[in-house]
Amino acid sequence: MAGNTFGKRFRVTTFGESHGEAIGGIIDGCPAGVPLDFEAIQNEMNRRKPGQSTIVTQRKENDIVQFLSGIFEGKTTGTPIGFLIQNNNSKSSDYEHIKDIYRPSHADFVYQKKYGIRDYRGGGRSSARETACRVVAGTIAKQILKTIKVTAYVASVGDIKLTKKYSELDFSNIEKNVVRCPDLKVAQQMEDCIKAVKKAGDTIGGIITCVVQNIPVGLGEPVFDRLDAELAKAMLSINAVKGVEFGSGFEGTKMKGSQNNDVILPDGTTKTNNSGGIVGGISNGMDIYFNIAFKPVATLMRDQDSIDLNGNIVTVKGKGRHDACVLPRAVPIVEAMTAITLLDLYLEQFGETDIR
Amino acid sequence: MAGNTFGKRFRVTTFGESHGEAIGGIIDGCPAGVPLDFEAIQNEMNRRKPGQSTIVTQRKENDIVQFLSGIFEGKTTGTPIGFLIQNNNSKSSDYEHIKDIYRPSHADFVYQKKYGIRDYRGGGRSSARETACRVVAGTIAKQILKTIKVTAYVASVGDIKLTKKYSELDFSNIEKNVVRCPDLKVAQQMEDCIKAVKKAGDTIGGIITCVVQNIPVGLGEPVFDRLDAELAKAMLSINAVKGVEFGSGFEGTKMKGSQNNDVILPDGTTKTNNSGGIVGGISNGMDIYFNIAFKPVATLMRDQDSIDLNGNIVTVKGKGRHDACVLPRAVPIVEAMTAITLLDLYLEQFGETDIR
Amino acid sequence: MAGNTFGKRFRVTTFGESHGEAIGGIIDGCPAGVPLDFEAIQNEMNRRKPGQSTIVTQRKENDIVQFLSGIFEGKTTGTPIGFLIQNNNSKSSDYEHIKDIYRPSHADFVYQKKYGIRDYRGGGRSSARETACRVVAGTIAKQILKTIKVTAYVASVGDIKLTKKYSELDFSNIEKNVVRCPDLKVAQQMEDCIKAVKKAGDTIGGIITCVVQNIPVGLGEPVFDRLDAELAKAMLSINAVKGVEFGSGFEGTKMKGSQNNDVILPDGTTKTNNSGGIVGGISNGMDIYFNIAFKPVATLMRDQDSIDLNGNIVTVKGKGRHDACVLPRAVPIVEAMTAITLLDLYLEQFGETDIR
Amino acid sequence: MAGNTFGKRFRVTTFGESHGEAIGGIIDGCPAGVPLDFEAIQNEMNRRKPGQSTIVTQRKENDIVQFLSGIFEGKTTGTPIGFLIQNNNSKSSDYEHIKDIYRPSHADFVYQKKYGIRDYRGGGRSSARETACRVVAGTIAKQILKTIKVTAYVASVGDIKLTKKYSELDFSNIEKNVVRCPDLKVAQQMEDCIKAVKKAGDTIGGIITCVVQNIPVGLGEPVFDRLDAELAKAMLSINAVKGVEFGSGFEGTKMKGSQNNDVILPDGTTKTNNSGGIVGGISNGMDIYFNIAFKPVATLMRDQDSIDLNGNIVTVKGKGRHDACVLPRAVPIVEAMTAITLLDLYLEQFGETDIR
Repeated sequence: MAGNTFGKRFRVTTFGESHGEAIGGIIDGCPAGVPLDFEAIQNEMNRRKPGQSTIVTQRKENDIVQFLSGIFEGKTTGTPIGFLIQNNNSKSSDYEHIKDIYRPSHADFVYQKKYGIRDYRGGGRSSARETACRVVAGTIAKQILKTIKVTAYVASVGDIKLTKKYSELDFSNIEKNVVRCPDLKVAQQMEDCIKAVKKAGDTIGGIITCVVQNIPVGLGEPVFDRLDAELAKAMLSINAVKGVEFGSGFEGTKMKGSQNNDVILPDGTTKTNNSGGIVGGISNGMDIYFNIAFKPVATLMRDQDSIDLNGNIVTVKGKGRHDACVLPRAVPIVEAMTAITLLDLYLEQFGETDIR
Repeated sequence: MAGNTFGKRFRVTTFGESHGEAIGGIIDGCPAGVPLDFEAIQNEMNRRKPGQSTIVTQRKENDIVQFLSGIFEGKTTGTPIGFLIQNNNSKSSDYEHIKDIYRPSHADFVYQKKYGIRDYRGGGRSSARETACRVVAGTIAKQILKTIKVTAYVASVGDIKLTKKYSELDFSNIEKNVVRCPDLKVAQQMEDCIKAVKKAGDTIGGIITCVVQNIPVGLGEPVFDRLDAELAKAMLSINAVKGVEFGSGFEGTKMKGSQNNDVILPDGTTKTNNSGGIVGGISNGMDIYFNIAFKPVATLMRDQDSIDLNGNIVTVKGKGRHDACVLPRAVPIVEAMTAITLLDLYLEQFGETDIR
Repeated sequence: MAGNTFGKRFRVTTFGESHGEAIGGIIDGCPAGVPLDFEAIQNEMNRRKPGQSTIVTQRKENDIVQFLSGIFEGKTTGTPIGFLIQNNNSKSSDYEHIKDIYRPSHADFVYQKKYGIRDYRGGGRSSARETACRVVAGTIAKQILKTIKVTAYVASVGDIKLTKKYSELDFSNIEKNVVRCPDLKVAQQMEDCIKAVKKAGDTIGGIITCVVQNIPVGLGEPVFDRLDAELAKAMLSINAVKGVEFGSGFEGTKMKGSQNNDVILPDGTTKTNNSGGIVGGISNGMDIYFNIAFKPVATLMRDQDSIDLNGNIVTVKGKGRHDACVLPRAVPIVEAMTAITLLDLYLEQFGETDIR
Repeated sequence: MAGNTFGKRFRVTTFGESHGEAIGGIIDGCPAGVPLDFEAIQNEMNRRKPGQSTIVTQRKENDIVQFLSGIFEGKTTGTPIGFLIQNNNSKSSDYEHIKDIYRPSHADFVYQKKYGIRDYRGGGRSSARETACRVVAGTIAKQILKTIKVTAYVASVGDIKLTKKYSELDFSNIEKNVVRCPDLKVAQQMEDCIKAVKKAGDTIGGIITCVVQNIPVGLGEPVFDRLDAELAKAMLSINAVKGVEFGSGFEGTKMKGSQNNDVILPDGTTKTNNSGGIVGGISNGMDIYFNIAFKPVATLMRDQDSIDLNGNIVTVKGKGRHDACVLPRAVPIVEAMTAITLLDLYLEQFGETDIR
């Protein structure tokens, strides 16, 4: 029952439970000779970590990455990069009350049934804490991709949504607000919404949009390992994600071919970009953009009905420190998984020649 | 530049171009001792094949599957199943006019740039003809899955959509109409729509819903190889698919946690099923359901602007025999890829003990 | 129970039983734009095929390769290459007598126990007939490797062995004798030995040496996917192979470090080559050479004791047309598997840049 | 340039350089609910670690394994097992003298050429220190395999060799002598030989035999992923290994079929076992046995000629604390890689049903 590795050429394997001693991972297949920007890695970790603003969980985790191998004198050596992140603020006592019960819409039930045993503390392996490891690998991938730019932002929270397309937005606004929405006005509405939901002990979902710019033509391997298929898998592998759509996506299903087709211009670009930069599973050089649907967080600060391990009806108490909306913290995770997927396919297509 | 294999335990590898001599594939890892129902396989092929009704392409292909190995006295032997489907109605002359041009929103451009060479006839490898091989493997997977039931149907064509949820529909209606929509009234509207679009030389997109019933708890491997992540990859690997959503999906992003959470009942089922049968990447035993977005077919029966291989502006003529809407023929493909994905994870989780 | 695919970047999947309608395979990940020399492919097939000389089995199989995809106007397109070889001389009646019995040192017993069913005709999937597909893929790999030269030859038959090292031999002699031994005098002794063994209804084993010249530095991926580890797997995947040794091999275990170490010279070559061109699992640019041990063919033209499916003692009759010594026909198979392994690692290391 | 993962179902990925802060690994796909014997794990670590006797290197490393995940209340949870081993006795100063030079028959040269950068301290990633991680995973595999018994021992050191077959030896003697040879008389000769070689500043090679008992019929996946092919890859992935042979191996190449064939008896066992328990790539239930050839250690305590990074001739000084013969310490490594390979194929064939 493996499943903890992502990628073929640039392979990321992670381990660790929410309340174990540490989480960590191994990056195998990283090109050699790449100087790493450790500050940039830590910055990305900080974008994901709890306690960074008033609208996210107030758990305190430093999320300091400790590299153990694969780096020599500041550069990658081509050998596997092993890394650790200590779990220094785990309050297991917060979870004693769920030891014998299954929380609604959490993985407690399926883990117990699948494995016959589970580390219940903080959700164990099913906790989104695991994604911290992905951010480490993703940031390294970003640094190797260099000119290929991956940008994600919050496009909707509940009913509140951006009306502008990605190309009309100012990405420099993303980090200027706690929600990570590039329209500051809409961001404020989203923030108010999250605060209200939180106050009510409830949670709320939303949509993240991811945009890839300066992408070369040719990434993606037909027939099964298409670029959009790999990205879809990458996105659905993120906790709480329930859907993904590329280019005109679900809206495009209502269109006619004459509306949706992208006319190719003499320079190889297309007049419109309803394809979202991917045609036949391969990048066509236009911007890639896609939406990712996040369900509302399952952990509520209110009572919920559920059952215990013996099938008795119980009340799950709202307890602990949790996010009312994961989207602001999920932005760097989406970027990380996108960068990992792109680098994996980039190395498959172009080898390491351009990178070193 | 591999990428033509799907699955780990139940591995399907396909080959073939639209206008080559034949297409085919190899199924590796098929459990031994399974009696195959060859008529059922051919029936599924017929559901996918061109010319089956007035609303699909009138190309005539028999799509007769020829098995070459892995079967002895009607039963699988555990060795690889090699199979062929002859391409007996390819009119390559229909494609001479696109030899040197890139059709809009087709893979011509990206294949040429990626590989420096392409078989332009009928789209070559990028043609959806390849999916016939998936239906072969998928139908075998279905037969092995036995009680696990995979059902897909057309949920929308353009703006015309089903308003009922899957559980309120009568699946026995699906094969009673050419569109494969389980509501006969809506089906008629869809049929009319497709005919009108076709008459206008245009095409139209839509949504297919797929439902999996009688699924055991425990399919799916966290963290990266989640059931929904694998299904998402499987769906996005199908030609013309641009999006996928599980359970409450994109609609669920607007909900509060208190609305979206599924209360677990004493028998382990859930009161609601917004999760769509998958929690934490693992099946929870409830019905799995998901929507797949198909863009409108790129080939129009009208003139379109584009460029040739040298970047000169050209007019692409509408020519040949093509679908105005692929959804009716895509239903068995969605079912096939779903069945392959489920069997692959089933074997990973349970081995072959229950199957033989 | 997969296992019929070899390679990661250059992936070969084969199917087919000895007495099915056809055997064949799919080569996925073949670089695009490579002009194929079909005559050379058929020549290699002829080196492997039965009936080519008086010392090999007199079964007649044409072994004509039929390519079905992945090739356009004589060049590879980067899409999977599907191919077929018809089984046109299978006399299944020759095998009726082994339907219910297990032949000694054959795979009948283990296939029956593992799968609960088997195609007994001609050994079914366990027949070395499958290796014809490897020769197809291997010859294509050779053509892509261009200047990297892979040469195998028979180094011993029973007790009769070459005393000269590979570097002292004239490889142009290999195809000048039916045994494929580069020393014509020794070749004659081997031929006489095989004929005598054959006359006695017996069989004989031997050793094939494989030499790789003009190999670049850097092939092989530490730690587990070393060049020698991959080659060892490739060799042991060939029917009847029971051992492999690289460079000084088993003889080197008796040496002292001061004798076995290879001094590195200013130009990067080494004074001696006890390492056999591989150090730390990576090619060092020196010639790679290794020995492969083939056991004597299990099928004898004499009576042998064995059991039937019910455990009753039976006599297995010597019947059919079989090789008394497989080594002459195994030479192209060894070359094929070596070439496939090298190309797979070459693409991993250097990409396709140098190849197109 | 990945390559640091072994196995498909039971997947072991390792990281770490000889003189980094720590080495470690991730075991993915470990069955859930297995109680681990941590003392047994540490015992195996001690069998491999330096300084355990007077005939091995006197470097002091504690090799304490620290588990970070995948274990809950002493049992495996089915989630990845992350573990660390600190490098607490690395004297990097011992290696300053080789910073700019390539040691003969070491991986310095190929790593520099392949990656353009290398951690020269203690051989970096190419150091056999990495194998400590394999022993961790291998010992866990052994515990899961339960009744399947894997035993390795030293069969030869230089010219001194065991004359008895494995079945005539008393395995309880293996741990009674520092060489790990089951014949105490021969063991003494080996010990004397190693001491003499060491005194001369030289090193010596040898052969390890590995025996697997109580193996079920059916392990191994034809055609490419045969049991012997996988074991061969596993063995050749171990540092200093240059060859492997199964059953009658290279000696068997001299035999006639009538001598080498194993007659099958009514109970399914065979009269002889020249096949070494593997027929057609699948275990037949008889004992599996194979020999592994280890070259002499490349690091000598004497001056050797070599070159520096610029191609100038230099003298490599004998310095540091090294093994004169690795075989005694390699015994647990051979067992570990064998156990990992067997468990991987066992899970593929039988799933986890029997294990939990």
